[in-house]
Amino acid sequence: MLDRTYPAQVCSIARTLEAVGERWTLLIVRDAFLGVSRFSDFQRSLGIARNVLAQRLGHLVDEGVLEHRDDGAYVLTRKGRELAPALHQLMKWGDHHYPRPEGPPRLTLHRGCGGRVEGEMVCARCGEHVAQRELELVPGPGRTSTAAG
Amino acid sequence: MLDRTYPAQVCSIARTLEAVGERWTLLIVRDAFLGVSRFSDFQRSLGIARNVLAQRLGHLVDEGVLEHRDDGAYVLTRKGRELAPALHQLMKWGDHHYPRPEGPPRLTLHRGCGGRVEGEMVCARCGEHVAQRELELVPGPGRTSTAAG
Repeated sequence: MLDRTYPAQVCSIARTLEAVGERWTLLIVRDAFLGVSRFSDFQRSLGIARNVLAQRLGHLVDEGVLEHRDDGAYVLTRKGRELAPALHQLMKWGDHHYPRPEGPPRLTLHRGCGGRVEGEMVCARCGEHVAQRELELVPGPGRTSTAAG
Repeated sequence: MLDRTYPAQVCSIARTLEAVGERWTLLIVRDAFLGVSRFSDFQRSLGIARNVLAQRLGHLVDEGVLEHRDDGAYVLTRKGRELAPALHQLMKWGDHHYPRPEGPPRLTLHRGCGGRVEGEMVCARCGEHVAQRELELVPGPGRTSTAAG
């Protein structure tokens, strides 16, 4: 049983942050979305201490966000994949408020159409409302070849 | 100048979490959305140590998420208010994965229409795509009278 960090809170944001709000945790989830699955690859991508990484991965497995497979891989569960909309909104906020001169590291496109989609989930090309499953994440102009995400 | 916690990361999520990813920080932002503005009221709502709260509030002011007014109030800036979509998605994920038997603590409704809106931003009553500014946050069946959020 995990400690309840925010015991007095009747709030789904508080409960969510118990699961995925610790430092590094959402970056592990982000890496998992980008295809990272091995302990050593998370370690290389994030550059954090092995004991901290092991603790965070164990917590995400306990919360049902990651599955630890028999072959050692850590893979997002359905519950974990359902964090995509929250990560998308956090990314768009960062893109907007901490812009890089060369442009954002990653873009979200309307799958099939190719138009850019920002936080309001409207395609800049066709003007349609875009559902989360219709989003495609692609490298943007601000991505460097050495960066993971 | 703040330390860069995730120095190797070319990623808008990493940069965002530098600003708002520390423990308690997003709950302070949530309280600010709910109208909390006084140090003592944040302290009462969150139940955290005063020195931790002071550090987190100062960080949010430094990042331009909160403004510290001459009368002592901490108020969301425009940049801070633009975290609403990310908080909304974190709330919906928590509602879905950590349901309370009596229902969610808060609901988001299509303003004017009154239909419920979930993470996909479609009104359950009229079927329209709902923009973030058309969302109305109201107490839900799972909210207790003593809980802040």
